[in-house]
Amino acid sequence: MIRDTSFPTRKGAHAAATSIAAILPPTPLLPVEIGGVRCHAKAESLQPIGAFKIRGAWWALSHVEGELVVAVSSGNHAQGVAWAAREMRKRAVIVMPRDAPRVKLDNTRALGAEIVLYDRTGEDRDEVAARVIAERGGTLVHAFGDRYVIEGQGSAGVEIAAQMGRSPSRIVVCCGGGGLAAGLSLACPEAAIHIVEPQGWDMVGRAIAKGEIVQAGPDAPATICDALQPTATKQVNLDVLQDRAQPGVTVTDDEVRSAQRWAFANLRLVLEPGGAAALAAALAGKVPLDEDSVIMLTGGNADPVAFARTLAS
Amino acid sequence: MIRDTSFPTRKGAHAAATSIAAILPPTPLLPVEIGGVRCHAKAESLQPIGAFKIRGAWWALSHVEGELVVAVSSGNHAQGVAWAAREMRKRAVIVMPRDAPRVKLDNTRALGAEIVLYDRTGEDRDEVAARVIAERGGTLVHAFGDRYVIEGQGSAGVEIAAQMGRSPSRIVVCCGGGGLAAGLSLACPEAAIHIVEPQGWDMVGRAIAKGEIVQAGPDAPATICDALQPTATKQVNLDVLQDRAQPGVTVTDDEVRSAQRWAFANLRLVLEPGGAAALAAALAGKVPLDEDSVIMLTGGNADPVAFARTLAS
Repeated sequence: MIRDTSFPTRKGAHAAATSIAAILPPTPLLPVEIGGVRCHAKAESLQPIGAFKIRGAWWALSHVEGELVVAVSSGNHAQGVAWAAREMRKRAVIVMPRDAPRVKLDNTRALGAEIVLYDRTGEDRDEVAARVIAERGGTLVHAFGDRYVIEGQGSAGVEIAAQMGRSPSRIVVCCGGGGLAAGLSLACPEAAIHIVEPQGWDMVGRAIAKGEIVQAGPDAPATICDALQPTATKQVNLDVLQDRAQPGVTVTDDEVRSAQRWAFANLRLVLEPGGAAALAAALAGKVPLDEDSVIMLTGGNADPVAFARTLAS
Repeated sequence: MIRDTSFPTRKGAHAAATSIAAILPPTPLLPVEIGGVRCHAKAESLQPIGAFKIRGAWWALSHVEGELVVAVSSGNHAQGVAWAAREMRKRAVIVMPRDAPRVKLDNTRALGAEIVLYDRTGEDRDEVAARVIAERGGTLVHAFGDRYVIEGQGSAGVEIAAQMGRSPSRIVVCCGGGGLAAGLSLACPEAAIHIVEPQGWDMVGRAIAKGEIVQAGPDAPATICDALQPTATKQVNLDVLQDRAQPGVTVTDDEVRSAQRWAFANLRLVLEPGGAAALAAALAGKVPLDEDSVIMLTGGNADPVAFARTLAS
């Protein structure tokens, strides 16, 4: 079954925000001081599944009529879909990479979803999902290239504006496929959108610069940001971001680890690497900041052993 | 100068809550599921200083007329007083144990306070503070045995009731000197108050059982809960808690570490040992829970090396 793929809208993001406010309390907008500037950090890592992905999953599943949903995810969208499916008494099958962090696999299973594993190298995850749907039916809920997912993620922007009492001047946001960045672009039309990607995985930044989708090459380097390495954005994300996003910036693994330590000490928050990428760019002085700037802290599903190593380093 | 030592009141806790709401956003009341029961956790670890102590310090300093305040603290009250003093353009001198966690000493200094160190064994911290006041003047803001400090901590209870839309049925709260427990008792008169102390440091629980103040003996064991080891409660705390608190429970270091790991994985929060004590009691099944129960997560100023060790264990 193919879902409605019409374009996401600002109105949709507002409708998603209303729907989500009825089931989830707002996440805190925490005061932070970086380089002498007092601004804000949006702690989406405090969502029940530890990531903003619960928003898009909830809004997308609200538009699925059948009982079976299928998703492809390295872990956080997986948990979002599993959580929303459980709440709505649907069944979820999630296609996940075999090397996804253990914590994300365990949490997804604990939420009652069925997991189908694939190899990041050698298997195309979208093909695996298509096979599942061909065999068993169900509706695909794409992790970012989906109207409702984008609108759902945009609900975070609606929430931020309500918490601030005005539009943020700029939003610094990590970027995997571009679902959250696109949603925030729609929800906060007056804000500058700064997208942050791991070094070597800046497929969205490069797509915006080039005006067309860019695929990750086989030589893409390793990154600790497991949540930020889809191999390409989708047309709908690029269409939204093309005229809205600032030139993309990238962060190194060391900058990300440093941001994880900073959040530990200064915000008492656990952030996973990808969830700390926007903060890393802010701390490294790679994006401008003013008092109405918001830094998105997108996820906290960190592997404890890796986190312990980061703390001790 | 001796401060007004009249009795703390429920009305005072409400006035404190109004004053504090004007300067600090509410901390989130997070949904948690423990032993199959869905209840709430109040994340006071997300206060700007990483602990609830900012509340009592703010309310107490609001009643100090002079420019110099003096406090005695193992670290979190220190940061609260330093923070409030900076906001109010007062000067703060804090008497801290030489073995206080490095993170707490650093944070207190970074907030502009002057630190006077003392030895936990061999020196009486109240005497050190009295000497500072005799030499330099200033107003003592006691960490827990103070009307305004108790009312200020009680503002957390006012906030919880507003967030729930009703009184909590019970509050599980760690207990050092008993300032927070007393404040919550006043703010939430319909809630059962369960106090949790480190094994061997249950001076408040024993004082309530005995009806008089109990001093820690020289043989009190080591505990990782540095924030929960004052040597005795004060009369005002005992007077409030005497008829309000349930029989006290204690937790072991291992139970506390286990709670720190649970909060890391399930709430993506950094909790210091003392800040995880109430959660430890809940996870160990030592307190009853129902859907209107609230577990206080009181502090997140964890030493990174110790936290890394806890995660890896």
